Amino acid sequence: MANDTLEGNRRPPIPRQASRGASLLDAIEGTLADFLAAQIAALDATDPALGGLARTTRDLVLAGGKRLRPTFAYWGWRAVSDDPVEPVLPALAALELMHTFALVHDDVMDESATRRGRPTAHRIFARRHGARFGESAAILVGDLCLVWADQLLARTPMPTATLFAVRARYDRMRVDAIAGQYLDLLGDREPGQWSVDRALLVARLKTASYTVQRPLQFGLALAGPASPVVDEAFERYGALVGEAFQLRDDLLGAFGDPAVTGKPAGDDLRSGKPTALLLLARQLRPDISDISGEAIAATGAPEAVEAMIRQRVAAAVAGLAAAPIAAEARAALSELAVRATQRPCDS
Amino acid sequence: MANDTLEGNRRPPIPRQASRGASLLDAIEGTLADFLAAQIAALDATDPALGGLARTTRDLVLAGGKRLRPTFAYWGWRAVSDDPVEPVLPALAALELMHTFALVHDDVMDESATRRGRPTAHRIFARRHGARFGESAAILVGDLCLVWADQLLARTPMPTATLFAVRARYDRMRVDAIAGQYLDLLGDREPGQWSVDRALLVARLKTASYTVQRPLQFGLALAGPASPVVDEAFERYGALVGEAFQLRDDLLGAFGDPAVTGKPAGDDLRSGKPTALLLLARQLRPDISDISGEAIAATGAPEAVEAMIRQRVAAAVAGLAAAPIAAEARAALSELAVRATQRPCDS
Repeated sequence: MANDTLEGNRRPPIPRQASRGASLLDAIEGTLADFLAAQIAALDATDPALGGLARTTRDLVLAGGKRLRPTFAYWGWRAVSDDPVEPVLPALAALELMHTFALVHDDVMDESATRRGRPTAHRIFARRHGARFGESAAILVGDLCLVWADQLLARTPMPTATLFAVRARYDRMRVDAIAGQYLDLLGDREPGQWSVDRALLVARLKTASYTVQRPLQFGLALAGPASPVVDEAFERYGALVGEAFQLRDDLLGAFGDPAVTGKPAGDDLRSGKPTALLLLARQLRPDISDISGEAIAATGAPEAVEAMIRQRVAAAVAGLAAAPIAAEARAALSELAVRATQRPCDS
Repeated sequence: MANDTLEGNRRPPIPRQASRGASLLDAIEGTLADFLAAQIAALDATDPALGGLARTTRDLVLAGGKRLRPTFAYWGWRAVSDDPVEPVLPALAALELMHTFALVHDDVMDESATRRGRPTAHRIFARRHGARFGESAAILVGDLCLVWADQLLARTPMPTATLFAVRARYDRMRVDAIAGQYLDLLGDREPGQWSVDRALLVARLKTASYTVQRPLQFGLALAGPASPVVDEAFERYGALVGEAFQLRDDLLGAFGDPAVTGKPAGDDLRSGKPTALLLLARQLRPDISDISGEAIAATGAPEAVEAMIRQRVAAAVAGLAAAPIAAEARAALSELAVRATQRPCDS
């Protein structure tokens, strides 16, 4: 799926924010670990086999990853709030549980063997009773993460109006992730019917909306009635950064180092996946038949994609300059836009 | 899965309640249809392929079924409320969307070909791009129903305290459904390690909690601060009726008419599924090796299971007699306990 590379094996740096001595990332991990321990205890008490299901789920959640969505949500909230972070930690951490749902189900659909350098959920359960059981158990692990995310979200106290605004962003985020994944599946089956526009629509749904826009707006809504000006600034920033993320992912999928991306080199090209990179190469050289990395490179498409990334990141950073948000948040979001879309060797 | 027979092809009678001229069932169908039409329009506007996904999902939701969970939730609410039903219809209908999530995912896990007399979700999508695509799309259809259920639930206006109480029941209902399905999968793979107690635990999770207790308590919570006495009465009623449901399902799975159950005759026995019926037969005749319908019948287990059903239904009805609830709700729940657990030929 589209985000494998960026969400992959690397454990990259993430801006850390002091929170009573603990970093933001540590605070989110701690919130997740405490919540998961309580769920494990409850299910263990019902049946030890259910405790086992819950422990495997916990290990998948806590196996690392960039925690991008809680981080964007944090800065969306911090952009307009000076309050202590503790009360909103459950809501921020809920986005990561929800993301585990998406990853576990996507890995079943894509038949992926590894995630974050470890076996995927369906592979773990397949060891016990075979591939069919593995996939069924992984579907349930994903379902459980989605429900747990709701339960964790409910632990952030907030007024009804705030809750409805927060949940509206959260629901949009989840529907867009599902819609983007469906189009991604269709694209793999119908590459001949794909266009650059449709590849960018998938990027808008799966990456811009799901990873950046809605988490930022979710965080903003957590702080109370949202300023329409800030909400709109996050909408534009997220669209630009999300597309840049996806374009970087396309380049990594075609030319990335397997040791860094966790995927075989050139995997997307071999499968004919209709990425913006491949579709652009075909626009530049309509007669292209060889879609090896060398042939794609010769069309000039990679440079064009690099330019598209630079343009989007520059526009995202410039757009933040005028937004009425805390200077600390502006700086962090500008840095995130650059860092999350640069080549791995630059980081 | 356990509930196939009871949730199957039959479109059985359901108690109807006048609601501005429309029956309860019609009002729920209308609420679902209106909500789904709006979601289809929104996804269609993003991409026609997403509109197609949404339309197929709508057809699955509206394909019939007993609407048991909205019905129990309605009577849980009506037990203590005289208010007009319209404002709570979205919450009642949300339970049916959530149930479609469970059915679609269960059908993928069980590789079921039909549901409610029509092809299952994964079979519908498999026609387009093969079995793998079918299963992936069905996973997404289930995910979408779960998120839509949350969105529909959010359309019932309620105070924060009520919302948290309602969602707590809803979350418990969802976790129990997932936990019960996981144990059901394990039981199919490890029948030698199963016991009557564990079979009844699956029944408590998948049928008692998910189908009766939590929907009743969800409805009760919708009416405002719940009476602990009524909540406890629903807990007991639901445990008894849920187990009776499951025991009837075991008998139908072994001896039911395929035209009524929608499953091949004796399917559960052939697969060695560790139902309470089979485990009881083995308790009564430890040396049994032939597990044909005739051999099971000869142990006396079916009569014992019929007696267990009668005892549970009688206790459920007796327990309601003392509960401080509206007479109309008491009568409807007593009738539901009998009707939903009787042999199909009696109905």
